[in-house]
Amino acid sequence: MYAVIFRAKLAQSDDAYFQTAKGLRELALGKYGCLEFVSMMEGDEEIAVSYWENETQIMNWKKDPEHIKAQEKGRNQWYESYRIDVCKVERAYKSETQKKQT
Amino acid sequence: MYAVIFRAKLAQSDDAYFQTAKGLRELALGKYGCLEFVSMMEGDEEIAVSYWENETQIMNWKKDPEHIKAQEKGRNQWYESYRIDVCKVERAYKSETQKKQT
Repeated sequence: MYAVIFRAKLAQSDDAYFQTAKGLRELALGKYGCLEFVSMMEGDEEIAVSYWENETQIMNWKKDPEHIKAQEKGRNQWYESYRIDVCKVERAYKSETQKKQT
Repeated sequence: MYAVIFRAKLAQSDDAYFQTAKGLRELALGKYGCLEFVSMMEGDEEIAVSYWENETQIMNWKKDPEHIKAQEKGRNQWYESYRIDVCKVERAYKSETQKKQT
């Protein structure tokens, strides 16, 4: 499995940004085989982690026409800076704990 | 380079939780060679990503006595569930763009 870590510092965010982000997330999951997509914002910082079965899916996703348009807009308008790490998941630990309700 | 993605759903967070998290982050960076440590919370969900030069550092960090105590408290008290992905960074893209101030 692969994980793509996207981190950005936003220069500007508007409704179009959040709409685009939502649309792209649905596209990744629905069309490109993305297994899971989680994102979080704190102030002007964003982290999004997506999980994929293989690198081909990630490359196809990168080349999606809507995604390319968004990447350009991101570079030119929305992001002050960003960083993307494409990672191979070597091992994973997971809790199965469910806290009792008290 | 390696990235460790930690994701958790909190059952309960208190001052001790945030103090512990802060202390552990400083320990990782100061003593175990962690290169960068970013974390974010939204509601009861947390994502923390840490970057490391090699796996030995990650294993040493995992076995740190203060970290082990915190892991136990996390499992028993703070977290409803968590997941850790240890990843090898295969490639990285980075913007150098700085938006003009208008």
